[in-house]
Amino acid sequence: MPRPAGPPMPAVARLSLYLRQLEQLAAGGAERVSSRQLAGSLRTTAAQVRKDLAYFGQFGQPGLGYNVSDLIRHLRRILGTDKVSKVVLVGAGNLGSALLRYRGFRKKGFEIAAAFDVSRSRVGSAIGEVKIHRLDDLPKIVRDQRVRLAIMAVPAEAAQGVADLLCGAGIRGILNFAPATLDVPSDVTVDPVDLAGHMEQLSFHVASRTEEG
Amino acid sequence: MPRPAGPPMPAVARLSLYLRQLEQLAAGGAERVSSRQLAGSLRTTAAQVRKDLAYFGQFGQPGLGYNVSDLIRHLRRILGTDKVSKVVLVGAGNLGSALLRYRGFRKKGFEIAAAFDVSRSRVGSAIGEVKIHRLDDLPKIVRDQRVRLAIMAVPAEAAQGVADLLCGAGIRGILNFAPATLDVPSDVTVDPVDLAGHMEQLSFHVASRTEEG
Repeated sequence: MPRPAGPPMPAVARLSLYLRQLEQLAAGGAERVSSRQLAGSLRTTAAQVRKDLAYFGQFGQPGLGYNVSDLIRHLRRILGTDKVSKVVLVGAGNLGSALLRYRGFRKKGFEIAAAFDVSRSRVGSAIGEVKIHRLDDLPKIVRDQRVRLAIMAVPAEAAQGVADLLCGAGIRGILNFAPATLDVPSDVTVDPVDLAGHMEQLSFHVASRTEEG
Repeated sequence: MPRPAGPPMPAVARLSLYLRQLEQLAAGGAERVSSRQLAGSLRTTAAQVRKDLAYFGQFGQPGLGYNVSDLIRHLRRILGTDKVSKVVLVGAGNLGSALLRYRGFRKKGFEIAAAFDVSRSRVGSAIGEVKIHRLDDLPKIVRDQRVRLAIMAVPAEAAQGVADLLCGAGIRGILNFAPATLDVPSDVTVDPVDLAGHMEQLSFHVASRTEEG
């Protein structure tokens, strides 16, 4: 059977932005927000906001807008961040160590349960509260703790091997910082974050706009 | 006058991927590559590869494929990474410090010329070879060194103020790690990298695919 279409990708991406905006509004004490206010700060339209939200349910009241805390609760439930999700991290080098310390994941409901590395000098130590284990221990820990999500911050040449290990252990989503394209089973989602590639793209756009001017 | 359309965004993004793949092939000693080989590892088609490359010039020879080192040189020139570009970084906290140590930027031709922070304990110190300056010194350093690109790794609440400072100093491209939407002049390009947002999206896709199964 063909996979159901599901919501269009960009709408789901915008939900994250709406949620981020709502959390800032809540921090500032706001109780209600209109689709126009939500749209304004995100450079989209009020109609788009209403359409995106309507896809997932009926949240607002015409003329009254949305209740900020209710909408935050609804969006977190839709995105699956209303409860804490465990994540493992592979590669505790410079970037991996920083990601272990990064508080943004925890704020969104992601808890890094364990980290893994091949370096003997790193294994056995801890960064923050996260212990660094041998890579060989990954399958058991992932299975025992039923972890579905992983962050990969390993060198490009190690990436495919680590991806195979992760998928075999039951990981179903990989946030991949390694500058390598991964070959994974069709039921595993890979989100590539190529930091140097982002910089390269930005540089290209700045250069091409400068030439125009 | 309307802005010229320029190449479609996804093609430019794919150039980065082709280049990454070619650099790996070159490291492995390959001299020639076919559009089919390039396409295979990136899950696109040979026709797409030829179309993308043809947009920027005539590089390959029918039946002979592409010369790996020539194509690397061409792609670097197109992307503007054939020469070293200076970048400034604002926010030398956990994530910022890691980005300062991240070797991937340097490999792609980006040199972080200076870092900035508001914390007195950080200002005056150095991470790797990069000195951390007071934020007040940013405009002068950016202007003196004619820097066009910046990386922002500051808290959300500081982001707009820092963006204003950067744009005023002449920065034209911002890689923004702060979880905040920035309001910038139309001649400035912002590339947002919301790490927690990526995790949230990944979690959503994994959860929705698990429900289907």
